[in-house]
Amino acid sequence: MFGKEVYIARRKALLERLQGEKGIALFIGNVDAPAQYKDNCYKWRQDSNWLYFFGIDEPRFAATIDLESGEETVYADDFGIDDIIWMGPMPTVRSLADAAGVAKTAPYGALSAALHGRKVHFLPASRYATRLTLGALLGLDPAETTSAGKGGCPKASEPLVRAVIDLRLVKEEREIALIDAACDLGYEMHTAARRGIRPGRIEQEIVGEMESVALSKGWGVSFSTILTQHGEIFHCHSHGMPVAPGKLMVIDAGVESNDHYASDFTRTYPTSGRFSQKQRDIYQTVYECNELAFSMIKPGVSYRDVHLAACAHLLDNLQQLGLVHGDVDGMAAEGIAGLFMPHGLGHNMGLDVHDMEDLGENLVGYDADQTRSTQLGLGSLRMARRLRPGHVITDEPGIYFIPDLIRQWKRDGTDKGCINYDKLEAYFDFGGIRLEDDVLVTADGARRLGAQRLPIAPDDVEAAMEQDKKL
Amino acid sequence: MFGKEVYIARRKALLERLQGEKGIALFIGNVDAPAQYKDNCYKWRQDSNWLYFFGIDEPRFAATIDLESGEETVYADDFGIDDIIWMGPMPTVRSLADAAGVAKTAPYGALSAALHGRKVHFLPASRYATRLTLGALLGLDPAETTSAGKGGCPKASEPLVRAVIDLRLVKEEREIALIDAACDLGYEMHTAARRGIRPGRIEQEIVGEMESVALSKGWGVSFSTILTQHGEIFHCHSHGMPVAPGKLMVIDAGVESNDHYASDFTRTYPTSGRFSQKQRDIYQTVYECNELAFSMIKPGVSYRDVHLAACAHLLDNLQQLGLVHGDVDGMAAEGIAGLFMPHGLGHNMGLDVHDMEDLGENLVGYDADQTRSTQLGLGSLRMARRLRPGHVITDEPGIYFIPDLIRQWKRDGTDKGCINYDKLEAYFDFGGIRLEDDVLVTADGARRLGAQRLPIAPDDVEAAMEQDKKL
Repeated sequence: MFGKEVYIARRKALLERLQGEKGIALFIGNVDAPAQYKDNCYKWRQDSNWLYFFGIDEPRFAATIDLESGEETVYADDFGIDDIIWMGPMPTVRSLADAAGVAKTAPYGALSAALHGRKVHFLPASRYATRLTLGALLGLDPAETTSAGKGGCPKASEPLVRAVIDLRLVKEEREIALIDAACDLGYEMHTAARRGIRPGRIEQEIVGEMESVALSKGWGVSFSTILTQHGEIFHCHSHGMPVAPGKLMVIDAGVESNDHYASDFTRTYPTSGRFSQKQRDIYQTVYECNELAFSMIKPGVSYRDVHLAACAHLLDNLQQLGLVHGDVDGMAAEGIAGLFMPHGLGHNMGLDVHDMEDLGENLVGYDADQTRSTQLGLGSLRMARRLRPGHVITDEPGIYFIPDLIRQWKRDGTDKGCINYDKLEAYFDFGGIRLEDDVLVTADGARRLGAQRLPIAPDDVEAAMEQDKKL
Repeated sequence: MFGKEVYIARRKALLERLQGEKGIALFIGNVDAPAQYKDNCYKWRQDSNWLYFFGIDEPRFAATIDLESGEETVYADDFGIDDIIWMGPMPTVRSLADAAGVAKTAPYGALSAALHGRKVHFLPASRYATRLTLGALLGLDPAETTSAGKGGCPKASEPLVRAVIDLRLVKEEREIALIDAACDLGYEMHTAARRGIRPGRIEQEIVGEMESVALSKGWGVSFSTILTQHGEIFHCHSHGMPVAPGKLMVIDAGVESNDHYASDFTRTYPTSGRFSQKQRDIYQTVYECNELAFSMIKPGVSYRDVHLAACAHLLDNLQQLGLVHGDVDGMAAEGIAGLFMPHGLGHNMGLDVHDMEDLGENLVGYDADQTRSTQLGLGSLRMARRLRPGHVITDEPGIYFIPDLIRQWKRDGTDKGCINYDKLEAYFDFGGIRLEDDVLVTADGARRLGAQRLPIAPDDVEAAMEQDKKL
């Protein structure tokens, strides 16, 4: 937890943005999430909005801010002797509210009455438990309390959502320091993973070794580790394969620090330590797209334009490799890059890996005058906004060869004749490549987060893997 | 997954136990559980009852068994191209149903109509998502679909619950083999932890190293690791303390195998490698209770009696140490042991660490003629039943010195004059000791699960830690 002045200032800034609104802003902290039976829960993780405005890292807390009077109240119950036996002595609710700079406390059960008859502004919930709580408190169907698709949650308070996004999107110096620290630990984790790659080992063994780094010094991983020789499957969480020689291994993994800030890096390694020429050609393209994107990041530039520039570069290179043909601008406009990179260039990152995504992807990632595309790839772009100093975003281009998708495009003629399908067939067992850094938008440009950058240029990757063998 | 004949046989056995019941038995598999926003979920874990009867280890499946006609149907939806891009090609619902030996499949959305107008037998849910699903399908308040306290869930089907417990309580040979394997990996994990104990290290570093063993070769840990110098706090999941010399470190941790069977061991180590005499006296008592309990385990004996015998032995030893005084039988009857061991001797273990606890603790752990005590300690006994061959249970006595509890007993006179409070004060910073093995009830006795037993006799523990130093 930061000092209470931090939370007081954040809530003051929130209240200022909501001036003129009537009613109460409601914040529901998380409860434990059962993995099996009720006493066997997943690792405790507090709600990120709660952490941002109140910081109290304990289950079963809620709070209200009266938008008219400014009165703030924390709702929670003190521990009894049974709780103390099983969970140890706990600071009182009063002392925790003090740490958050909140003057008033009340039992959790008093929350319902406090909301009665008032207009209630709430944030969309992702956890099922919070959906149930909000549903019961507000007389809503729990399904109405969560963001539907990318558009947000119609019953939630758009003024509150916008105010929270406005604040959390621009990181404070103290947050940037913690993200840097999460990136440093992420660097260690990825280095351990790279050192573990040897044909014959089971992927899962490497996952255990790398996650050990995150668990030993931080909260753990910031999302389910992706470590796969099927890089063309974006969220492949199956780790049962032996490492095969001559393949590409995509490792997309991050650390959550003990202060709950995330890192999120992706590297792609040749399992044998050296790229084949075919692999190197595609890798070089993705690497260039990553570098190009980074070079464009500065205040005022829209990240949508950076995405499109990376896609154009991708198409240009693939044309030289003979995989596509046609006018690059025309192909870019038609969204042809989406066949090879059916995801966006990046997303916001902070307390959440995809920062604030539960508030509604479009509200978080798009300026008011930007409309989200429906094209494959561009339509998945989570961050399109014009960049501002303090934004923390990922830069993660990729190229993938997804047989089912290629067959579908061929069947449907989606490519408008731009794809050389005969040449593509040689890539059906290629897999995929993604290269991801975490980037801070600065006053006049950008800085990659973390003290060291993971080796990324193809020669540097091979040199690092050669060095690893000597350990 | 086992061969389909296993699931067919289990469902047949279930149907036999429900002969004469009207209506439909409903099984709801798990969906992913968001940790933060919807796309950042906790590690996927299927529902244990679903795994037992259907085996399909994928999210968003449900099934029905018509208790009158015997017809079985699996409800789920096949992947579309968007799912394939993000999650990879998936076996079809049809092929997965085949693997479970189920003849009929239908879209998930057809489930509601299939239940319409029929009596529906369901199992209590623990996960919030399942509570929501059951509530919506059956027109119930989600709170009515989960077990309340220890008594189970009044709206759930007691015949179905009892039939499931009857089957799952007695482990098949194939299940015992998998629990043995989980115990072997648990042995490795605990050994790594013991080797990591050195004054000055941060507890969390050891947690990372030990969980790495579980993650490298299995699904992960079977519950949130307890590794603490505050053993008197049963579920202490805070690992931020440096290892201090002269303390006791309780490590209670288990592995979940890739087949989802659990192990659960506890050992307590002197952080400096040698017990002080004061520590050794208490440790020896807990060790003797563990051995005594194991020696009593055989078919026909009630585990409640084993718990009581361990408690009597505990009181006898504490009397010799001058911490209590009085007639041991009298003290045992008054529940005086509960001050030192306010938990039960053990619980069932299988697909869940506390096996089937979501079905209702009393239904799982108590025979029809046994009534659960309200005494501190005995009241927390999760497994009281008369033992049968095939039961898998934990044997985990402990002694703890919990200042807040001791002060409460003194204030309230709960001890009826049996406690020597003046002597107890010297133990306020002692912490706690727990020693836990996993045990199979055999035809004529018991077998500790796993190929090797973790060192437990005090001399053996010290010898192992001495040996560790040489590594």
